[in-house]
Amino acid sequence: MPRYKLILEYDGAGLVGWQRQSNGLSVQEILETAVERLCGRKVTVHGAGRTDAGVHALAQAAHLDLPKEMPPDVIRNALNQHVRPHAVAVLAAARVGDHFDARRSARGRVYRYRILNRRAAAALERGRVWHVGTALDVAAMQEAASLLLGKHDFTSFRDSMCQARSPVKTLDALEVARIGEEIVVEARARSFLHRQVRNMVGSLKLVGAGKWRVPRIAEALAACDRRAGGPTAPPEGLYLIEVIYSEL
Amino acid sequence: MPRYKLILEYDGAGLVGWQRQSNGLSVQEILETAVERLCGRKVTVHGAGRTDAGVHALAQAAHLDLPKEMPPDVIRNALNQHVRPHAVAVLAAARVGDHFDARRSARGRVYRYRILNRRAAAALERGRVWHVGTALDVAAMQEAASLLLGKHDFTSFRDSMCQARSPVKTLDALEVARIGEEIVVEARARSFLHRQVRNMVGSLKLVGAGKWRVPRIAEALAACDRRAGGPTAPPEGLYLIEVIYSEL
Repeated sequence: MPRYKLILEYDGAGLVGWQRQSNGLSVQEILETAVERLCGRKVTVHGAGRTDAGVHALAQAAHLDLPKEMPPDVIRNALNQHVRPHAVAVLAAARVGDHFDARRSARGRVYRYRILNRRAAAALERGRVWHVGTALDVAAMQEAASLLLGKHDFTSFRDSMCQARSPVKTLDALEVARIGEEIVVEARARSFLHRQVRNMVGSLKLVGAGKWRVPRIAEALAACDRRAGGPTAPPEGLYLIEVIYSEL
Repeated sequence: MPRYKLILEYDGAGLVGWQRQSNGLSVQEILETAVERLCGRKVTVHGAGRTDAGVHALAQAAHLDLPKEMPPDVIRNALNQHVRPHAVAVLAAARVGDHFDARRSARGRVYRYRILNRRAAAALERGRVWHVGTALDVAAMQEAASLLLGKHDFTSFRDSMCQARSPVKTLDALEVARIGEEIVVEARARSFLHRQVRNMVGSLKLVGAGKWRVPRIAEALAACDRRAGGPTAPPEGLYLIEVIYSEL
């Protein structure tokens, strides 16, 4: 059966996350329902990563096998019709070889976390940012972020429900920048532990607020104990912005 | 009574616009209710401009007279508490002299119009952009926009309900740019006719789509007849982004 890769944008608000679950509507279920309407058959849509409830995507990747060949643009347009009225968009579809697997073929993931750092709560960007009403020290957050780079046991920033076999991951980039009223954190790694980005951001926020000195980030990391890490930043500020493949 | 200036952000979705109306909730009513909760008295909040139903603001300006002096930061924070749960935020408050009038003192208004120009409809930016699924020629739109600059009778781009005394306005800037998947139009003038920006954008879109040749914009303008102008672009793409004052 011919395999296709999809690039997906979605608003995570009100959804239970990527993965199909019994307790609410997931991106996977919305897409699989759309695919069934397109080809009259139940087909599994495999995502590159499982975003949590409330987390957004600008470019999630997925693959699926269709019963027959179809032009990629027809697949994209038809799925966009069938996902209505849900806030999920198929940005692109492409024919790929059978060896392509959205999750296993991925060479990297890039996440963005948006903090709205001003006194007034978000009006226009409500549900799209984490509002922090007190001033954050971006330079301190940048210094702390650099201490997390490289290959480490990230147990201190790993959700207790994480199913990964090993807590050791290599963090390739963790950049903090102020852009207008927002503080934007971008993280890149081959893969992440469950809630790793939100747990790192929750700790960086404590540094920015002056509640943690910068070295405490390194101490938290070295402790290899979730209780040493900071709280989990809320889901609405997180975006999966890119899944990197070396080839199709 | 001491006068204060407010800077406001709001999400226009679901609201009837700036002005208080009997058929639905307005930004003005939300703010006046919040002010009454703050000072126990009915106070009119005067806006710099009346945004239409569905139109957003990043920085609307307004003024109001309070029964007694209060620190501006206290006003801002208290109003932000009292406007909940509505998607309105008071970004700043400042004490101003009695001569300041949000509408009459304004030297200019700047609006931004966002067109999402890609095949897939908006998922994350739904309700915040006008989705146009066919390719638009930005260079042609830029050329057409330049034909509208300067002092003209803008009757062809004026809503039939417009109450302005004169249809003559001076358009100081009308810039069209592609930013990623979006085409962004920014318009600046001392003041605009009712729906002038949305009517100009609706016409520029026809040029971008190749349905109008560039000179037809100038012909439409010269006709001084609303029937010669293009259709009205939808409200959800429009943002009031700045009100310019020469001084407080």
